[in-house]
Amino acid sequence: MSKRINSTPKQDGYRMPGEFEEHSKTWMIWPERTDNWRNGARPAQQAFAEVAKAISKYEEVVMCVSKNKYINALDMLPAGIKVVEMENDDSWMRDSGPTFVINNEGKVRANDWEFNAWGGEVDGLYFPWDKDDEVPKKVCELENIDTYRTDGFVLEGGSIHVDGEGTLIATEACLLSEGRNPSMSKKEIEDKLKEHLNIEKVIWLKNGIYLDETNEHVDNIIHYCAPGVVALAWTDDETDPQYKFSKEAYDVLINTADAKGRKLKVYKLHIPNTVVITKEESEGVDSVDGTLPREEGDRQAASYANFYIANGVIIYPTFNDPKYDKLAEEVLKEIFPDREIVGVYAREIILGGGNIHCITQQQPKGLK
Amino acid sequence: MSKRINSTPKQDGYRMPGEFEEHSKTWMIWPERTDNWRNGARPAQQAFAEVAKAISKYEEVVMCVSKNKYINALDMLPAGIKVVEMENDDSWMRDSGPTFVINNEGKVRANDWEFNAWGGEVDGLYFPWDKDDEVPKKVCELENIDTYRTDGFVLEGGSIHVDGEGTLIATEACLLSEGRNPSMSKKEIEDKLKEHLNIEKVIWLKNGIYLDETNEHVDNIIHYCAPGVVALAWTDDETDPQYKFSKEAYDVLINTADAKGRKLKVYKLHIPNTVVITKEESEGVDSVDGTLPREEGDRQAASYANFYIANGVIIYPTFNDPKYDKLAEEVLKEIFPDREIVGVYAREIILGGGNIHCITQQQPKGLK
Repeated sequence: MSKRINSTPKQDGYRMPGEFEEHSKTWMIWPERTDNWRNGARPAQQAFAEVAKAISKYEEVVMCVSKNKYINALDMLPAGIKVVEMENDDSWMRDSGPTFVINNEGKVRANDWEFNAWGGEVDGLYFPWDKDDEVPKKVCELENIDTYRTDGFVLEGGSIHVDGEGTLIATEACLLSEGRNPSMSKKEIEDKLKEHLNIEKVIWLKNGIYLDETNEHVDNIIHYCAPGVVALAWTDDETDPQYKFSKEAYDVLINTADAKGRKLKVYKLHIPNTVVITKEESEGVDSVDGTLPREEGDRQAASYANFYIANGVIIYPTFNDPKYDKLAEEVLKEIFPDREIVGVYAREIILGGGNIHCITQQQPKGLK
Repeated sequence: MSKRINSTPKQDGYRMPGEFEEHSKTWMIWPERTDNWRNGARPAQQAFAEVAKAISKYEEVVMCVSKNKYINALDMLPAGIKVVEMENDDSWMRDSGPTFVINNEGKVRANDWEFNAWGGEVDGLYFPWDKDDEVPKKVCELENIDTYRTDGFVLEGGSIHVDGEGTLIATEACLLSEGRNPSMSKKEIEDKLKEHLNIEKVIWLKNGIYLDETNEHVDNIIHYCAPGVVALAWTDDETDPQYKFSKEAYDVLINTADAKGRKLKVYKLHIPNTVVITKEESEGVDSVDGTLPREEGDRQAASYANFYIANGVIIYPTFNDPKYDKLAEEVLKEIFPDREIVGVYAREIILGGGNIHCITQQQPKGLK
């Protein structure tokens, strides 16, 4: 049985590793809510299966599935993927899942943040979210990994990026939002992150991706690719509301030293041409009180920065964009010359409000 | 992902080992249905926790728990027990769970029998039972163990006992009942058991324990203790309806050679003084259409033969019986001189219709 630990990772010598460090496996959750995923979630399930399949060629994938969809998931997933039963409110393992930490001897533990569906009663995206909030405990129980609870501190994994060497990047739009930890000052939030991720410096961006319903998670606008190296979602179109967000982020990133005093190298990943919901797509979503409507013409927060780094590979989203899909691949090849670059068509994932990074969570490789 | 295999264990050289052979772990399911377990199932949960705790001193225990009771189970179980989420219809892992088989190289697979709640639409004990029927698949998926499906053949693990060397003991009352496999002849049923458990001989007892609601499962009246050695539930009271059942079983057992041509050594385990449901106990059970009522004065099918063999230990039920609890312990000590003999007070388990053997399922130790 996994134990609850009352100290903090910093006190015990644990740190959150970079996503680019070696994984033992990837965790995902099977999508099913029909008020978020169109057509009974079937197209989303196909897309999630494609992502899982792509990752599973490089590392183990565990898919957490509700009782109702268990047989369906077994049927749709390829043979190499492990299925475990786990009730959930939606399928964003990055955000509801555990944030693993590791010590110098390779022992792995995890942070079990409070989860409130991206804003709770203020501007959360659905209610209730109790099943999601239990996901970290259940994942860690399966792995016999002990957890740190954070005394009501609300955080999602997608709202932080770390280099594993003392630096964290986040957006003010998200971490200082009213629906997260409104009673805490910016400094108190920084202190909490320092204790639980064992970092020394927070680099604050103001915004994320325009219209991102997570209050602009950092993992949709940047990706920490290596210590000192960041990929940034970008647009050359100065009339696009995204331009200001990306330009300000760029200025912060190139003018701020990381925890080790390094200047950051910033790669620009141009966003795709605007992705909007079609009439057909909108009509496929169940209308339910209290969940975000998906309306025809709504602009999606599409960004190539929302990729996933697995052992030896980058799994990045494509949008059937004749120009920018290819450009993203080229930039990623330049950033990651030693990894394969694999695109997965991700329109069905962005229609649900996130992308490949949002639906995955890496567990670092520990030493038994 | 666990695979489905279309051949049979016999064809592939797998056999069901005796329960007394080495285990890798024990599987259990957390009780919760309030139409079977009194007082919101809380007293039963305490008893199951005691059984799990007793076993966990000797081998790993995994407790499968529904989403609704997950936190409750974590709270009530001691630290050494692993909890996994698994929806279920009730908590009889012996009967709904997989029947593991092993080959000469120590590779483990399992039979996934059809489960119909001890008689389906004929005389099943509850409806529906679909969640129970999925338990073997889910257990094996967690362990990455491949399964044999049996084309609609209905069987519960508690309706068979094997010596691991070619002999199986069962009751006609159960295996030939109308609610199991009515279209199959006795020979066809024997052939199915031979194919799926790799046995050569079935020893048929007529009956099990008087008023046993499972159609008299063999695991309540006898226990295979070692090749050639059987414990038999017994009564000296010739006016007790159980006397005839036990005497006939005794006569069959001492007069039948096993698959290896051995005579069986039969130890008598005298049943406890009659256990009946009290008014208070009956009143604690929710009344629900279609499930077996638990009425004041009902005689329970209490038997010491319903013990569990784990690595180095026997976990046997006690009933607060001043005479026969002690006698059972003495007989078990004689049968198993090299194992510890541990009693667990099991009244709350027998009130639900079974006992310690019924709520446990051993996974044999394989070689990775």
